[in-house]
Amino acid sequence: MRRVAVIGVGVTKFGRHDRTSAELFAEAAADALADAGLPATAVQALYYGNVVGSETEKQLHTSPQAASVLGLPAVPTTRFETACASSHAAFRHAVMEVGSGVSDVVLVGGAERVLNVTTEESTEYFAYASDARWEQTLGLTFPGVFALVARAHMTKHGTTEAQMAAVAVKNHKHGTLNPKAQFQKEITIEQVLKSAMVADPLKLYDCCPFTDGGAAVVIASEEVAKAAARRPIWVLASAAASDWMLIGDKRDLSRVPATERAAAAAYRQAGLGPQDVNVVELHDCFTIAEIVATEGLGLFEAGTGGVAAEKGWTSLGGKIPVNPSGGLKAKGHPIGATGAAQIAEVVTQLRHDAGPRQVDGARVGLTHTLGGNTATVLVSLFGRD
Amino acid sequence: MRRVAVIGVGVTKFGRHDRTSAELFAEAAADALADAGLPATAVQALYYGNVVGSETEKQLHTSPQAASVLGLPAVPTTRFETACASSHAAFRHAVMEVGSGVSDVVLVGGAERVLNVTTEESTEYFAYASDARWEQTLGLTFPGVFALVARAHMTKHGTTEAQMAAVAVKNHKHGTLNPKAQFQKEITIEQVLKSAMVADPLKLYDCCPFTDGGAAVVIASEEVAKAAARRPIWVLASAAASDWMLIGDKRDLSRVPATERAAAAAYRQAGLGPQDVNVVELHDCFTIAEIVATEGLGLFEAGTGGVAAEKGWTSLGGKIPVNPSGGLKAKGHPIGATGAAQIAEVVTQLRHDAGPRQVDGARVGLTHTLGGNTATVLVSLFGRD
Repeated sequence: MRRVAVIGVGVTKFGRHDRTSAELFAEAAADALADAGLPATAVQALYYGNVVGSETEKQLHTSPQAASVLGLPAVPTTRFETACASSHAAFRHAVMEVGSGVSDVVLVGGAERVLNVTTEESTEYFAYASDARWEQTLGLTFPGVFALVARAHMTKHGTTEAQMAAVAVKNHKHGTLNPKAQFQKEITIEQVLKSAMVADPLKLYDCCPFTDGGAAVVIASEEVAKAAARRPIWVLASAAASDWMLIGDKRDLSRVPATERAAAAAYRQAGLGPQDVNVVELHDCFTIAEIVATEGLGLFEAGTGGVAAEKGWTSLGGKIPVNPSGGLKAKGHPIGATGAAQIAEVVTQLRHDAGPRQVDGARVGLTHTLGGNTATVLVSLFGRD
Repeated sequence: MRRVAVIGVGVTKFGRHDRTSAELFAEAAADALADAGLPATAVQALYYGNVVGSETEKQLHTSPQAASVLGLPAVPTTRFETACASSHAAFRHAVMEVGSGVSDVVLVGGAERVLNVTTEESTEYFAYASDARWEQTLGLTFPGVFALVARAHMTKHGTTEAQMAAVAVKNHKHGTLNPKAQFQKEITIEQVLKSAMVADPLKLYDCCPFTDGGAAVVIASEEVAKAAARRPIWVLASAAASDWMLIGDKRDLSRVPATERAAAAAYRQAGLGPQDVNVVELHDCFTIAEIVATEGLGLFEAGTGGVAAEKGWTSLGGKIPVNPSGGLKAKGHPIGATGAAQIAEVVTQLRHDAGPRQVDGARVGLTHTLGGNTATVLVSLFGRD
């Protein structure tokens, strides 16, 4: 395959919006195209992630709608849905389109609108990403899934609630440095531990919020990228893996095998290892998810992710900064946009353009997005020449 | 890109099933793998189409679920949704994965379950493929969209209700030759014309049914295909195009520009023209849709599709047989499965394996799938060595 680069990024403010997901995407896409210095007419295909649009907006067929709102009525468009990993899946497939020579300039992104419905409704719709017959009927919503993961990790490795709280505190601190983040306030370990119980042992501040937002990136072939307005950030790898759908079929809930598989594939594609990575945006839908992901990505030994968070190794200035954007926890989690927003952040970091949240001298970055009950994971690697 | 072939196909009986869409897909996929002479472990990725699963089954994240039911828990899986064209979109992207050398064997398919909900509910859910704010609020469901298309075609070209009825009569006749078809009975022009009005001028027998079903195809690289159990059928082209989302933004409802664009791209990829095509499976969600598609694909001059149907030119034994499977009209339309099922039929035809519905000596076949209010179209071309 040909080399592929990201040449433009755009992200809306994350939070509450009174606009459709297509309109949110259009804002992010227009910013990404302006960043790339390209007109919309340069786009040869649209790869689009959206998850619960048919529930919250009564809208399927969201990819041509997003294209129409952007003034792009004729190009091929496809909607991708792999639960919360949707726009990262879109990105991986888009990289194949450019890498294989089918197109030279492709727009990738996603958007989600959920704050127009109640929290109870959102919780139900998100649960559609777990098995309808064997899990939803038991009331197993996602806080419950990750509470099981947390209990397994605590039992096996001695991980503590304070260690999980350290993830939330760190990501909220990072979020104060990101003007696009939904939450812009620091919190304390004590606040996390005293917040309302959601699914024991996960408390309110262990959970990411519901969020409206859009994100987009422009990817291009090497030839286009080398003539682009901004420094190209190269896609070194983009890999996906899955796992058994049912929680009950998984052998060890303290691990996420799909993360380990996707990471192994991505490192192999890039010819790199975890020791080469300088900045990471990963899927912290719950604090325990960040701890398990840092282990699955090989950043820390199995069982030591909690210690790493507690010691500040994943903070800005630490051994390997994780979620400088604030992560899903503080930046917010507009599920169809999340993967593209993580990529936008890593590209911004590798351009050395992240201002007060810049990871000094970052040359290699990683994004990790998880879908559903740990059944889908995408991992991509990016590099600066 | 490398050459890509279809080496296995499988389709469930179309109609009413008391099984989940994942289980329907698993049946089709197992048949496709058996047809290819490959074990499930040979599959390197799953490309999966499903549309209204979150409505009718409360199930998102359907691709890892489909993989799990098939016993494939680790491979990358992606769900594609472009309304009724979903599994054809999945197919096009899968061809890029194999064509670009990322994988050698990929499973593509889709499934849908809708007969477990009421007709009123299905009609509403299908309408989610039109614009929520500007079309659904007006009550513009899909029979209404295609009634507008029919009126425009009648006004511009003098197309008659009897010509549209001829499409239904022909596809029902073809359906009697396909044991997998939902409807297995012949109908008459008079029955169509006297059937209940749905959306003037479209009557009940102008409309395809709601259907449960699954379909799957196995695609492979040239090297794998040449060693395969069955004669490989080569993918000569796979193209997509879109159009403005809103009906109100389209300039001429008697045409489907997305069909014309996708067909032009597919013919260009293959170095072929409409005169080279021997068999066609196209998207006859309503009888007028078949007439407009035969024109958009270049099989007949603009405005003459109705005459072609009336004269029997699109029947088995006619100038260019269209929908020998019975089409969506008689075979049925399990929306997420439809594109893959059309491909399975064309592959069966090009293998000269279609029994009583065989198009004699077919060497080049075309599939055409339309999504939503004519905003998404996929066209693929297939050839026999």
